[in-house]
Amino acid sequence: MTLNNIDINEIIKTNSPSRTKWFVPGSIVSKRTINPIREVVCNMKTSPNPDKEQISLALGDPTAFGNFKIPESCNEAVIKQLKSYKANGYINAVGCDEARLALVQKFSTKEAPLATKDVFLASGASDALNIAIGALCDEGQNILLPRPGFSLYTTLSKSKGIECRYYDLLPNRNWEIDLKQLISLIDDKTACILINNPSNPCGSNFSSQHLESILAVAEAYKLVIITDEIYEDMVFGDTKFYPLASLTKVVPILKISGLAKRFLVPGWRVGWIFVYDQNEILSEIRKSLFSLSNMILGANSLLQYSLPDIILNTPEEFFQETNKKLEFNAKLSVEALSSIPGLHVIIPQGAMYVMVGINIDELKDIKNDVEFSEKLLQEESVMVLPGECFHYPNYVRIVFTSPPEKLREAYDRIKEFFVRHHV
Amino acid sequence: MTLNNIDINEIIKTNSPSRTKWFVPGSIVSKRTINPIREVVCNMKTSPNPDKEQISLALGDPTAFGNFKIPESCNEAVIKQLKSYKANGYINAVGCDEARLALVQKFSTKEAPLATKDVFLASGASDALNIAIGALCDEGQNILLPRPGFSLYTTLSKSKGIECRYYDLLPNRNWEIDLKQLISLIDDKTACILINNPSNPCGSNFSSQHLESILAVAEAYKLVIITDEIYEDMVFGDTKFYPLASLTKVVPILKISGLAKRFLVPGWRVGWIFVYDQNEILSEIRKSLFSLSNMILGANSLLQYSLPDIILNTPEEFFQETNKKLEFNAKLSVEALSSIPGLHVIIPQGAMYVMVGINIDELKDIKNDVEFSEKLLQEESVMVLPGECFHYPNYVRIVFTSPPEKLREAYDRIKEFFVRHHV
Repeated sequence: MTLNNIDINEIIKTNSPSRTKWFVPGSIVSKRTINPIREVVCNMKTSPNPDKEQISLALGDPTAFGNFKIPESCNEAVIKQLKSYKANGYINAVGCDEARLALVQKFSTKEAPLATKDVFLASGASDALNIAIGALCDEGQNILLPRPGFSLYTTLSKSKGIECRYYDLLPNRNWEIDLKQLISLIDDKTACILINNPSNPCGSNFSSQHLESILAVAEAYKLVIITDEIYEDMVFGDTKFYPLASLTKVVPILKISGLAKRFLVPGWRVGWIFVYDQNEILSEIRKSLFSLSNMILGANSLLQYSLPDIILNTPEEFFQETNKKLEFNAKLSVEALSSIPGLHVIIPQGAMYVMVGINIDELKDIKNDVEFSEKLLQEESVMVLPGECFHYPNYVRIVFTSPPEKLREAYDRIKEFFVRHHV
Repeated sequence: MTLNNIDINEIIKTNSPSRTKWFVPGSIVSKRTINPIREVVCNMKTSPNPDKEQISLALGDPTAFGNFKIPESCNEAVIKQLKSYKANGYINAVGCDEARLALVQKFSTKEAPLATKDVFLASGASDALNIAIGALCDEGQNILLPRPGFSLYTTLSKSKGIECRYYDLLPNRNWEIDLKQLISLIDDKTACILINNPSNPCGSNFSSQHLESILAVAEAYKLVIITDEIYEDMVFGDTKFYPLASLTKVVPILKISGLAKRFLVPGWRVGWIFVYDQNEILSEIRKSLFSLSNMILGANSLLQYSLPDIILNTPEEFFQETNKKLEFNAKLSVEALSSIPGLHVIIPQGAMYVMVGINIDELKDIKNDVEFSEKLLQEESVMVLPGECFHYPNYVRIVFTSPPEKLREAYDRIKEFFVRHHV
């Protein structure tokens, strides 16, 4: 019954092929989906010094060195679900009820109330960002992004044909936003403002006053804010983290967070969006979030069902311990790096990053941050990311999650590097 | 140092807000991201009969009833990774080397060779499909999709502004493609052909001759094929499954598969794309797959690192056992449903579905498959999906993964339903 090839040749005559050769170009969307970190790093034509053990201060992954570990209780939560054989099936695209409810129990507050309908699980905070940006912004509109800022914001926005406009963070004001310059970027085509607090790559944490100023701008221009708070509560000393949504009853907010950083499991791909909308401005956006969530069906079931145990049973001491270790490393980094002439360290208040300015003029044979990073790798086997990856030249980002002895070794090598290259 | 609200008001005067009210519409893309199953099911204004226990034959999830279980060895693989504390970090966006290599070891054959560079892990087969379609097709182009066919193909394509053109599957030829009609759909704007074998919702499995005919068409028109083979090897009796890529050295193929169905873990969200391209036609597409994979970073690390143990150590008996149980249920379903006048059963050869035609004319008070499904749920508490969900009216899709006693009970109720409604 099958049509054989002879039949097919007959049919083909009725609709002559126009292509005589194979030609399969990549899609326009895929070509504009550019990861600045990958672009910069791949073009760094250099390799580590084979005589020195490599130390990477480049990857924002606290699990890389074994010194930061998820608590045993989290493993037990997952094993419990595995053994139940009830956590392997499809779940609602926006998340299972158990996980959504646990997040509400943990994060709903009087100032910023949440219900399960406000919670959208996603495959990591990246997917959560992708869905949030996709729900709010049309091709041809613009989005306001931080500079320096996490490169994924640019990747996701450009992929969708959204124009990226960068507002400046001010290093001499602990990376607060230059609100005047931000306002100058706003026009009729501005879809939303994205802020990231605490910040990657800055390691900054905004004061409540500064957050209130940002909210005042959003209110004046009637702009929704996407706030990436994946590093929430990862702050040092007397610094206090303020969830943006706790400071407004007016401005609608999509908050992005996830398990990755606080629970030290970036590979688990469990992220979420919280919708804060006390005045029901975002009813269309909720539908959009729902539609877009249905494309790939969110985070894996095993970890979603484990989420209540993970979120509700992890002792507060675990987070305090993590923050203490990070703070120790932050101080160690600031002290060591500040002692190097030619470097300008902006003291971090949170997260796991410090941005370090390089006085390029003081280096005799290095013309920018990319070349600095290349030569540092080549001569000292120390890897840092050039500021170029974050749209911020002449800085480098240092991740301080390595064990202290590794950090010390790396900073000693950077010091030697400066001795050699200083004018 | 922070700008206070008075300062902000001063600055705002320099760039007057044009919006005086909040207005936040959902994005165009999110509005065209439509899930036909959800649209149809949500509009079915009906609820189960409270006097009868509900039996769902609607959800394609083999784990729903507890009668199909992942082997213990898979659980052990995940527990091993959990206890290593080394499987929680970020991994390469296209998958960790260990997982890619295991897939090559398992699936590379002489006829269809694979190397690790040909393997792209993704967050479930849905994400794999999303990336494959996104890499190949531009907005304004068209994609050829099966009718009846899995609704996600439409959702993902329309979301990207790609025109969906449906080629017909022929129920009286075991759901083979009407190649003549398929060819009539091809034009300059056709980006690719998508086939699904074995098929959801048809439960069909193409012969090697039919697959070769499809390949002949693709070769004539120089069209890449995306083949969704998530139900590979889930076939019954003497039926043999042929991987499409094993039958051509010419036509470039993106094969979609994953752990979901064969390993009975649809919630785990581990899918992949294999690129078959013996003549290096797809070098741009590889870059596109890579770029798009970087947006959300693929499947979770814990399961990716478990993949080698899962893929390579699961005994063949496990799959045989699953297929035997499915085949038993398929036969039971065909026998029971064929005995009901007014139904027309297309015998399934694989997967976990049977499409059943309804002779609407023989029913006195039911006008179509949607109303049939509504009344069946309302009167008999049996849930099936109307063919409308798959662009195929006057059929319903039945999932036969429930335990046999549940299936028998459901089919008895359908029989009673027909007795009541038959003319």
